[in-house]
Amino acid sequence: MQSLFYSIFAHMEKFEINILGCGSALPTLRHQATSQVVNIREKLFMIDCGEGTQVQLRRSRLKFTRLNNIFISHLHGDHCFGLIGLISTFGMLERTADLHLYCQPELEKLLIPQLNFFCKGMPYQVIFHHINPKEQKVIYEDRSVSIETIPLEHRIPTCGFLFREKPTPNHILRDMIDFYNIPLWMINRIKNGEDFVLEDGTIIPNTKLTKPSAPPRSYAYCSDTAYFPRITEQIKNADVLFHEATFEESDISRAKQTHHSTAKQAAQIALDAQVKRLLIGHFSARYEDENNLLQEARSIFPQTFLANENMVFKL
Amino acid sequence: MQSLFYSIFAHMEKFEINILGCGSALPTLRHQATSQVVNIREKLFMIDCGEGTQVQLRRSRLKFTRLNNIFISHLHGDHCFGLIGLISTFGMLERTADLHLYCQPELEKLLIPQLNFFCKGMPYQVIFHHINPKEQKVIYEDRSVSIETIPLEHRIPTCGFLFREKPTPNHILRDMIDFYNIPLWMINRIKNGEDFVLEDGTIIPNTKLTKPSAPPRSYAYCSDTAYFPRITEQIKNADVLFHEATFEESDISRAKQTHHSTAKQAAQIALDAQVKRLLIGHFSARYEDENNLLQEARSIFPQTFLANENMVFKL
Repeated sequence: MQSLFYSIFAHMEKFEINILGCGSALPTLRHQATSQVVNIREKLFMIDCGEGTQVQLRRSRLKFTRLNNIFISHLHGDHCFGLIGLISTFGMLERTADLHLYCQPELEKLLIPQLNFFCKGMPYQVIFHHINPKEQKVIYEDRSVSIETIPLEHRIPTCGFLFREKPTPNHILRDMIDFYNIPLWMINRIKNGEDFVLEDGTIIPNTKLTKPSAPPRSYAYCSDTAYFPRITEQIKNADVLFHEATFEESDISRAKQTHHSTAKQAAQIALDAQVKRLLIGHFSARYEDENNLLQEARSIFPQTFLANENMVFKL
Repeated sequence: MQSLFYSIFAHMEKFEINILGCGSALPTLRHQATSQVVNIREKLFMIDCGEGTQVQLRRSRLKFTRLNNIFISHLHGDHCFGLIGLISTFGMLERTADLHLYCQPELEKLLIPQLNFFCKGMPYQVIFHHINPKEQKVIYEDRSVSIETIPLEHRIPTCGFLFREKPTPNHILRDMIDFYNIPLWMINRIKNGEDFVLEDGTIIPNTKLTKPSAPPRSYAYCSDTAYFPRITEQIKNADVLFHEATFEESDISRAKQTHHSTAKQAAQIALDAQVKRLLIGHFSARYEDENNLLQEARSIFPQTFLANENMVFKL
C-alpha cells in the first residue's frame, strides 16, 4: 500500500537536466564538448553529443537503457562527433531497443556509411527523424512531454529544443479521503475532476477533495545562437532556460562575428522571456573561469547559474 | 658554448612513449580508448586515435605543432573515432602544416565526406598514405627513424608499427679533445670516424678520441592481435614491445574468439622475441584492476609493465 500512496501523493515528478558537457568548439581539460541529458520521470532525452559524451554518460550513472531519443541542434562537430562512438558502444552492450535520432538530414547521410562500416550486425536500429531547424514544430510527444524545435540564429542552420511537461491530474487530499471514507476505486475519478456523492446525496465538490497539481514545467535549450530576441515569445515563462553564453561582454565583436552570444545577451533573453531561472554554458576556451560570465549575466538577470560538467539541475 | 657542448656530448636522444589511452573497445572511467604518441627527438608520431584522444593529447602537454604523422593500426572504432575531432581542432587552432595519416584506404573513404562537411576551409591539408596491413614494409623514414608495418592477426586487417632509430655518430671524448687541443671544425669529422693528425705527423686513431654512441633503439607496437608467434622475428631484440593483453588467462577462450591476446601470450611473445621490456595494454573493461594481468605476464617475462593513461615510458 505504501508505494500506491506514494505514487498518488507524490507532488513533483522528476524533471532534471544532467550536464554532460558545456564547453564550446575547442575541448579543454576543464570542459567537455556539448551534451545534456534531460531526465523526465526516468525517460532520458539526450541533447547534442560531442566527442566524449559516452564516457560522460557513464560517469553520470544514468541508465543507458533509458535513453531512446537523441536530439541534435546543429551540425558542428562539438555537438555531434560523439554520436558514432555512443551508437557503437550501445551495440557492443547488446542494446536491442530502437534508438531515435532527431537531426538534420545531412547527418544521416554522413552517419550511414560509418554505421555500415563500423557497426555492422548491431542488434538494434538507429531510426533517423529529420528536423527542419527553421520551423517551430513539435517533433516528439508522449504522455508526459512534448518537444518542439526552437529556430535559432547561428552560422549554420540550428535549432534549440523546448520540453513542455504535460499537465498531471490534481492531487488528492489524503485527509479528506479518510474523512469521507472514500473507496479506493473512486480515487482516479476524483483525481480527474469528479465530485464525490455521499450516501445521503450530499455532493462534496472536487475542489474540497483535491488541490491542483503543480503546473506543468518547461525547459528551453538554446545553443548555439547569436542574440536572437525572436525566441522570447516561444520560450515565455519557461522554468529553466539553458542559453549559450560563449563570450564576455568585452568580446562582443567576436560573438557577433561567430554568431554566438555574450552572457549579458543570454540574460537579456531570460529577462524578456520572463523565465524563472537561467543556466548558461558553451563557454569559450579562452576564459580561465566563468565567474565574469556569471557576474555579467546576473547584473541583468539575478537568477542565473553556471552550467558545469556532472551537474544535475532540477526543475 | 655550453649549449654547443651539451649537444655534442649528449648521450641518449629522446625516445619516449606517451600513453594517451590503453583501454579496449568499451571506454570506461578508468581507461581511455587507444592512442599513443611516440616522441623521438621532439618529433611526435601518434599511433591510433580513439575517441577522446585530442583531450588526452592536451593533457599530455605535448606540442600539437610537433605532431605531423598519425598511424592507424586497424579500423575498429576504439582506434580511430577520435580522428575527426582531432583534425577539426587542429583546423580551429589554425594549423598550416600538412598532417600525414597512414591508414588503410577504407578510412580515407569514410573520412573524406566528414572532412568536406565539418572541416571546410581548414588552413591545412590531411595527406592520406595507404598502408597494406598484410605486408611488412617501411612506410615512413627520416634521418632519425624508420617506421615499418608489422602484420598482425585480428578479426579485421590489422598491423602494428615498428619504430627503428637510426644509428647516431660516435660520441667525442671531451677530455681528449682538450688534451690534443683539437679545433672545433674537426669535431664533426671525428664524430664521423676520422682520425686526427698532430702537427708532427703523429696519428691519433679515432678510437682514442670517441666512444661508440648508444646502439639504435627500437619500439614495437602490436595491437590488436591474437597470439601470433610469427611476429617475433620482425620485432627481435626490440627495446620495448607494447603488446595488447586484453584478457586474463582464465578468459583465453574469449581471447581466441575475439582474436585478442592474454597477458601470458603477450609475455610469451616478449620472451621469444628477446625484447628488453614489455608494456601491456588494451585492457578489457571487465577487470577492476590490471594486477592479475601483470602477475600473469611477469610469471613468464619479468620485465613487464602496465600501461596507464598519462604515463611516459622512456626507452
